[in-house]
Amino acid sequence: MLEPMMEWAEDIWSFPRSITGNGVRETIHYLQELIPNLEMHYVPSGQTVFDWVIPDEYFIESAHISTVDGRRLVDYADNNLHVVGYSDPVKGVISRDILDKHLYSDATKPDAIPYITSYYKSEWGFCVTHNQRECMTDSEYYVEINSKKFKGFLNYADIIIPGKTNREVLLSTYICHPMMANDNISGIVVAAALARWIQSQSMNLTYRIVFVPETIGSIAYLYSRLGHMKKNTVAGYVITCCGDQGPISIVKSPSGATLSDRAALAVLAANDHQPFKVYNFIDRGSDERQYCWPGIDLPVCAITRTKFGEYREYHTSLDNLGTINNVSLNGTLSTLKKCISSIDNNATYIATTLCEPHLSRYGAYPSTSPNRAPDILNVLALSNGCDDAIECAQKARMPFAEFDATAKWLCKAGLLKTMEQ
Amino acid sequence: MLEPMMEWAEDIWSFPRSITGNGVRETIHYLQELIPNLEMHYVPSGQTVFDWVIPDEYFIESAHISTVDGRRLVDYADNNLHVVGYSDPVKGVISRDILDKHLYSDATKPDAIPYITSYYKSEWGFCVTHNQRECMTDSEYYVEINSKKFKGFLNYADIIIPGKTNREVLLSTYICHPMMANDNISGIVVAAALARWIQSQSMNLTYRIVFVPETIGSIAYLYSRLGHMKKNTVAGYVITCCGDQGPISIVKSPSGATLSDRAALAVLAANDHQPFKVYNFIDRGSDERQYCWPGIDLPVCAITRTKFGEYREYHTSLDNLGTINNVSLNGTLSTLKKCISSIDNNATYIATTLCEPHLSRYGAYPSTSPNRAPDILNVLALSNGCDDAIECAQKARMPFAEFDATAKWLCKAGLLKTMEQ
Amino acid sequence: MLEPMMEWAEDIWSFPRSITGNGVRETIHYLQELIPNLEMHYVPSGQTVFDWVIPDEYFIESAHISTVDGRRLVDYADNNLHVVGYSDPVKGVISRDILDKHLYSDATKPDAIPYITSYYKSEWGFCVTHNQRECMTDSEYYVEINSKKFKGFLNYADIIIPGKTNREVLLSTYICHPMMANDNISGIVVAAALARWIQSQSMNLTYRIVFVPETIGSIAYLYSRLGHMKKNTVAGYVITCCGDQGPISIVKSPSGATLSDRAALAVLAANDHQPFKVYNFIDRGSDERQYCWPGIDLPVCAITRTKFGEYREYHTSLDNLGTINNVSLNGTLSTLKKCISSIDNNATYIATTLCEPHLSRYGAYPSTSPNRAPDILNVLALSNGCDDAIECAQKARMPFAEFDATAKWLCKAGLLKTMEQ
Repeated sequence: MLEPMMEWAEDIWSFPRSITGNGVRETIHYLQELIPNLEMHYVPSGQTVFDWVIPDEYFIESAHISTVDGRRLVDYADNNLHVVGYSDPVKGVISRDILDKHLYSDATKPDAIPYITSYYKSEWGFCVTHNQRECMTDSEYYVEINSKKFKGFLNYADIIIPGKTNREVLLSTYICHPMMANDNISGIVVAAALARWIQSQSMNLTYRIVFVPETIGSIAYLYSRLGHMKKNTVAGYVITCCGDQGPISIVKSPSGATLSDRAALAVLAANDHQPFKVYNFIDRGSDERQYCWPGIDLPVCAITRTKFGEYREYHTSLDNLGTINNVSLNGTLSTLKKCISSIDNNATYIATTLCEPHLSRYGAYPSTSPNRAPDILNVLALSNGCDDAIECAQKARMPFAEFDATAKWLCKAGLLKTMEQ
Repeated sequence: MLEPMMEWAEDIWSFPRSITGNGVRETIHYLQELIPNLEMHYVPSGQTVFDWVIPDEYFIESAHISTVDGRRLVDYADNNLHVVGYSDPVKGVISRDILDKHLYSDATKPDAIPYITSYYKSEWGFCVTHNQRECMTDSEYYVEINSKKFKGFLNYADIIIPGKTNREVLLSTYICHPMMANDNISGIVVAAALARWIQSQSMNLTYRIVFVPETIGSIAYLYSRLGHMKKNTVAGYVITCCGDQGPISIVKSPSGATLSDRAALAVLAANDHQPFKVYNFIDRGSDERQYCWPGIDLPVCAITRTKFGEYREYHTSLDNLGTINNVSLNGTLSTLKKCISSIDNNATYIATTLCEPHLSRYGAYPSTSPNRAPDILNVLALSNGCDDAIECAQKARMPFAEFDATAKWLCKAGLLKTMEQ
Repeated sequence: MLEPMMEWAEDIWSFPRSITGNGVRETIHYLQELIPNLEMHYVPSGQTVFDWVIPDEYFIESAHISTVDGRRLVDYADNNLHVVGYSDPVKGVISRDILDKHLYSDATKPDAIPYITSYYKSEWGFCVTHNQRECMTDSEYYVEINSKKFKGFLNYADIIIPGKTNREVLLSTYICHPMMANDNISGIVVAAALARWIQSQSMNLTYRIVFVPETIGSIAYLYSRLGHMKKNTVAGYVITCCGDQGPISIVKSPSGATLSDRAALAVLAANDHQPFKVYNFIDRGSDERQYCWPGIDLPVCAITRTKFGEYREYHTSLDNLGTINNVSLNGTLSTLKKCISSIDNNATYIATTLCEPHLSRYGAYPSTSPNRAPDILNVLALSNGCDDAIECAQKARMPFAEFDATAKWLCKAGLLKTMEQ
């Protein structure tokens, strides 16, 4: 099932996402079309969530900078990065000097509109290309930001896809970045495709797939469910910046040794010599910051390609749909499916015979030339009732899927059994 | 004591070894001349040993392929690899086409007779060089295999050389391969020389030295003694493919951390910069497969040179006496002696003084120029009552024998003592 | 406070140090001027200290080799290395042949007087340059060593600088080597400067700073205080050969994992890409030999530059004041201060909030461009109530001082707290 992830990306590209507001809801509504039963949640402004308070909801009607004779130079309608996120409203003619303190640009990327927010501090401002800024040589300009902050809601969405057990895998991405493709539309569409795939499967574990505004959203999410999630979560991945051409990377959990880390590292290492990168937790950047916080301690790591902050287009208008592509998105999706498959099918096995079994009695051992036998015997010999299948597969130098298929065949043949959990 | 291992190899070269039959018994009888008190055991056909049943005994009187006018093209009398092991009897003129399905050769080694067996599946066949096969262009051939399978015995041999304690070291090799030198005559003669050396020594530990048909033999061996062996075995080595010019190698146990692994790794590392190879358990191939099986779990690793499957001559008639040599056999023997010596003399020591002793009072410290003192002090300083001598010798960068001699001198001097075991 | 360590070195250069006698006391008296309250201790000759007996006190009045017509060729007044340490007295004309057995020189360093002692074996001898020896071609020479051994005392000095807790850090150097600069004046002056710095600070831990004759002195020191020191010592450094231009090095404790090892390794690794060396305990050479002896087991490692025995001038008259310099001495001092600071301020912290705190509420988070925030969040995210600050700082890739300052600010802000100890 090849999903048209680039089409989805184009569809949601221009929704005016922020940590609250219509852009978030439009994105969730779109995702609800893709993922049946995806549920939208509302958290009211003013509610305390751990150390934070849900901010007012935010809405921009329009915004522009014009010459005093009415020529529009910078228009929110052109690119919703043009206004500082959560900018206060402003209206009137001001001097170029004063305006300058409210302009954000990056001289090192003169064609890029930088991405700036001021969620929790009262502020107004425009983000412009450095070239735009340099052309603004009049002594006065007309500025207008028609924005509103009001008691409303922070929204997020989730879906719980029940499996055979209530042990859960958490999959989380964020939906708060306006008009940037790798950060963050890539994460949204890969998580959506993954959710659809999980819905199409019959999984052993329960899957909790979460679309939240970054930081405040995951904090609010955890606030309402921490007890349950700490008790049930056995693994999890944050999905971020995963549509560019960079190598697939893992940002490890604090211990670097959770089931999520081990599964991902095994998948990446088994991936036919394709390059991959491994980052320590200190290099984290997205909602793994919350999921792995001391006392939260969920076994979560992050899957990314070129990590946030490490590509030139990061957090600017240059991070447009051209930075991502279908091959990369599908490569990330495929890797995540493998990680999830190995976690979902992970088990600890023990051989039922003492010494090697007489394989030819089980229809598995060609009498004159060996072929499946070495793998079969490796699966058995490594299944010591202690190391799990993810670890054994690595020791056996077999892709997890192959180890798993062999182990299941051996269970049916009565040569292997699962340890009680 | 330099043992004439190559002479022994020549003596037993042509015995028609298989997993049962005269070749095994002839080999054991020969070994009984070398190793007084080596005992031959009989396990009857049909007996269940774990997941296996002891097969019928096997005997080949003669076998050949001839032209219909009586010219012998392939003759078992020339090389006992020519008949597929445990081949059913056959007799008569058959078409070249049908014969072809019963011929085994290897086009990549046109002068080699491959080694093929079919112990547990009814089958008949000849193994020939590819050149022989290509010359067989007649339309019909006469084939005759005078073989017998009958209720008899599987044989193996062992000797228990008692030491001061009943903690045991297992040494095991196999005696079932016909007319191949590195695999397996090298293992037989090195194990025999090792047994003779152990008999000539006064050892602390008890030595169990085992000559078995590979796989079915070690399984049968374990079947009768598993409780005792699990309780008493503290270390062990399988000896295999150890007469060629390759570097001495270890195939580690599953944990890679048993006394056997540690002793061998220390010996190899201390061996004057001679190259060596370390394989993981997944690369195993001989009876360590049984000894290390889950639930068997003996602390055994394998000592080899060029590992099975990794040399061109492997499992063909090219693995003749020219593939092994006395220097290599003695090098392996010497390494095994060192491993055994370090295991036999291993102990956990603790220094008896607080702070360095005043060495010059013990006749060990030259007053004006140091020489033995640094080693003496290293032995003492590392003997913390926790790390054993094998580990301490490595930390001290001393060969085990030197560490051991120093430790024993220090025990006599009262400066060191053994921890109670 | 830049200390004039080279001036101190020059001041104490020529004191006739040995393991006992005036040179030791003169050195201690000098140090008492630098370090108020440094206390001199006396251990009488003949006292048993563990396996040792305190030797007689030693004194050299004068010594020389002359031609029979009275021309002085070798004079103790020129360099107090010229007489073998603890040499017996001798006086008279002897043949060149007999003299030769009492001469020590090093042909590989023809201008160097070697450093030789014979503390515990009755002996007399002169140490000369090889060039001097080669010029001594007369058939007879007059030799005279006016030395005395008598019941006296072995001296050492210590100071305990109390902190807020009675958990102690041991700092130790030796004061027994005559007229050699890197080994050992460098250690003396760095330890003195360190003592002065600790006295000027308000430390959390108690500091025990020890100046002892090497080996016999540290043994005597431990003999009188072992119970207390084992109970209270949490870390310690032996300071030795630390004034030359070599990279700062650590000789690790036996485990390599004590607080002292971890602090020093972190400081060296964080030291702006400056090279450093790490030696194992087996490479030890100074009083860490006693402090880390089995059963003593103090958590001590050694800080050095070019390790004893590894520089050409070692244990010869070439190890003069030219081998050390103020920059190197101050570099070592600075490293030790950092080690001590990190040990003194080490703590195990835990974040007080669940999920990241809303930093902008704490005056720490600039609303539109991040700067301190990443470090602040790293300190919090790594403070899991288990890993200590030294370990967390390394994981956070922050110098300890920066981690510590941030952690303390966070404690004040209520976002972090110390685990009960």
